[in-house]
Amino acid sequence: MSPFTGSAARTSDWEHLRLQLADGVATVTLSRPEKLNALTFGAYADLRDLLAELSRERAVRALVLAGEGRGFCSGGDVDEIIGATLAMDTAQLLDFNRMTGQVVRAIRECPFPVIAVVHGVAAGAGAVLALAADFRVADPTARFAFLFTRVGLSGGDMGAAYLLPRVVGLGHATRLLMLGEPVRAAEAERIGLISELTQEGRAGEAAGELARRLADGPALAHAQTKALLTAELDMPLAASVELDASTQALLMNGEDYAEFHAAFTEKRQPKWRGR
Amino acid sequence: MSPFTGSAARTSDWEHLRLQLADGVATVTLSRPEKLNALTFGAYADLRDLLAELSRERAVRALVLAGEGRGFCSGGDVDEIIGATLAMDTAQLLDFNRMTGQVVRAIRECPFPVIAVVHGVAAGAGAVLALAADFRVADPTARFAFLFTRVGLSGGDMGAAYLLPRVVGLGHATRLLMLGEPVRAAEAERIGLISELTQEGRAGEAAGELARRLADGPALAHAQTKALLTAELDMPLAASVELDASTQALLMNGEDYAEFHAAFTEKRQPKWRGR
Amino acid sequence: MSPFTGSAARTSDWEHLRLQLADGVATVTLSRPEKLNALTFGAYADLRDLLAELSRERAVRALVLAGEGRGFCSGGDVDEIIGATLAMDTAQLLDFNRMTGQVVRAIRECPFPVIAVVHGVAAGAGAVLALAADFRVADPTARFAFLFTRVGLSGGDMGAAYLLPRVVGLGHATRLLMLGEPVRAAEAERIGLISELTQEGRAGEAAGELARRLADGPALAHAQTKALLTAELDMPLAASVELDASTQALLMNGEDYAEFHAAFTEKRQPKWRGR
Repeated sequence: MSPFTGSAARTSDWEHLRLQLADGVATVTLSRPEKLNALTFGAYADLRDLLAELSRERAVRALVLAGEGRGFCSGGDVDEIIGATLAMDTAQLLDFNRMTGQVVRAIRECPFPVIAVVHGVAAGAGAVLALAADFRVADPTARFAFLFTRVGLSGGDMGAAYLLPRVVGLGHATRLLMLGEPVRAAEAERIGLISELTQEGRAGEAAGELARRLADGPALAHAQTKALLTAELDMPLAASVELDASTQALLMNGEDYAEFHAAFTEKRQPKWRGR
Repeated sequence: MSPFTGSAARTSDWEHLRLQLADGVATVTLSRPEKLNALTFGAYADLRDLLAELSRERAVRALVLAGEGRGFCSGGDVDEIIGATLAMDTAQLLDFNRMTGQVVRAIRECPFPVIAVVHGVAAGAGAVLALAADFRVADPTARFAFLFTRVGLSGGDMGAAYLLPRVVGLGHATRLLMLGEPVRAAEAERIGLISELTQEGRAGEAAGELARRLADGPALAHAQTKALLTAELDMPLAASVELDASTQALLMNGEDYAEFHAAFTEKRQPKWRGR
Repeated sequence: MSPFTGSAARTSDWEHLRLQLADGVATVTLSRPEKLNALTFGAYADLRDLLAELSRERAVRALVLAGEGRGFCSGGDVDEIIGATLAMDTAQLLDFNRMTGQVVRAIRECPFPVIAVVHGVAAGAGAVLALAADFRVADPTARFAFLFTRVGLSGGDMGAAYLLPRVVGLGHATRLLMLGEPVRAAEAERIGLISELTQEGRAGEAAGELARRLADGPALAHAQTKALLTAELDMPLAASVELDASTQALLMNGEDYAEFHAAFTEKRQPKWRGR
């Protein structure tokens, strides 16, 4: 637990998602399988608040985000979200859309890698949650669809018009966001949208193994790698080189770097402590 | 027609290109087939001025850019452009190169998607016009060549050194711009330079269908998707998420979003109005 | 030789690398084959200083960077670098990491294209040197590994967290930098990390031919192409278009552009002078 926690209590019960914590790995499961894990206001809010809590507690070294049932996440619920937003005033609409964007920023900015497990549908906001993750471990049933224009909205939702060109290039991103067509696993792998393609039904297991390996490894090095990847998308080359230099100088004072050298010298595996 | 038109008259006749307007779709054809549609000063100027007119009139919801004859566009005419520029002073050279760049900016910034139909050669400035489009619908005869260094000029012409790395990645972009070698359709598709590869001779038809679908769809949503993709290449993540949020709040007050929900509820197809 | 050289003497002897100069092509060879060309402090310093000298002398029009023996470069030497840095204070650690970053900046900013010849291992700092080059000419034995997290450090080293997402996209870059796993030639080519894949044992020859062709070509045009590709990664579209325009106006006053037109008119090959 970080010394930088204050009076804010830990949430004891997450109503809109399922959370498991096991030795540094958090597994967050969207659990509304009868609706293909369609997101509600409460689910967005819980994701935002959970990521904030986990980020300040520093007990988590990797997070797996999965969906229960036949798919990952079908996006915002047509009735509970689209219906409800039609009755909202402008301030409320801004609040809603900022909340969803905060979830994406939290995924990109939290101090641990996030692994999305994608099987079946990852549509609309569900596709953007997967896109924001550091790793997309998917099986051949996975299909991504950035459906926003299909409901009359902009394909730039929750940062998608920023992130997708940086993952798959501007040409593919334009096609995917403008048309909202489904991208199946084979194409998603070809264009760089899938990090690891597994056999059918094995994505959850593979993601769990990856999370375990990340959590048992040099977790501070992983966290800084993520932070630099996120930051340097928005930085020029010279400043990036300087940020890399100061980050490495910091980590060269850390325990894991010394441990690597000791282990190498003693011809044994390093015992990573994540600091 | 937009209320924001003033005294400027509509151009009745475009001397250097052919324009057809049909129910929200503009088809612009480079029509100098005997010269593989090599661009002249007048052709650049007409493209610049046409895109400005169409952008302020708001009558167009999608634009197709095609070339007549054996290819899309062989680039700047060797005699009429290279020859003429050799006699120009510095101010004129700047004026010329700014004009060509303005065409690319107009393609990226106009409030409707642009679809390039590429068959045969897309070389030099022709390759950059296609690159600047939102979609490149091509057939197997397509071949792109960023020929600039072959004539002793920089591969960064009309924004190519900005756009190409963002479409195909820095490695491929360096190779293509530095060497000026032709990229055939199969490779162009593999690296993300082609949006849709059709059967031979069918690119024009496929582009027309895509334009029709875009024009008949939620055109304001498409226009905003394009605007955000263009803008967010130059914005940091946090600002992009905020821009997405305010854009979606705006569109959630729009007619098409309500229409989607009504159609979904009534189990019918939406009738998009583009607003 | 440039008129902009002052009192600083040319280094007569490079202790930590081998340099050959032949008619505008510099070939720099890492020559510690018994250690897979592992880098020492002296090797980094020599690369930094050699690139600075070659940049100010303007006698070089292309540079080949190769490794002697079984591989390209295995990265920082475990004993001579990792061991030594463990005894350094913070100011020294910053100095070391800035020096390595200066090598990458020099590769990106020198006024000639750099071609890395990759066979066998390109690991750690060796992978970043190759990544920073304009061309990676590799044979099927090539394998890249961004090993930094494996030694407890950040994957963002020497600008890797800036460069790699711009070459292969954010998804692949995250996987490669976070996990440090080897990427073999076939995958490296598929994701855009290899510029030219040759037959086994032929990468050096192919790189030499490419360097010769670049040096014999319109070298100022190549240098400006590189400069714009580097600069425009960090610039917005409108400014990039303006930079392209002023660069082309400049080159249109140059000898090579006139020579192209003369050669075209006379139906002969241009004789490039690189200015």
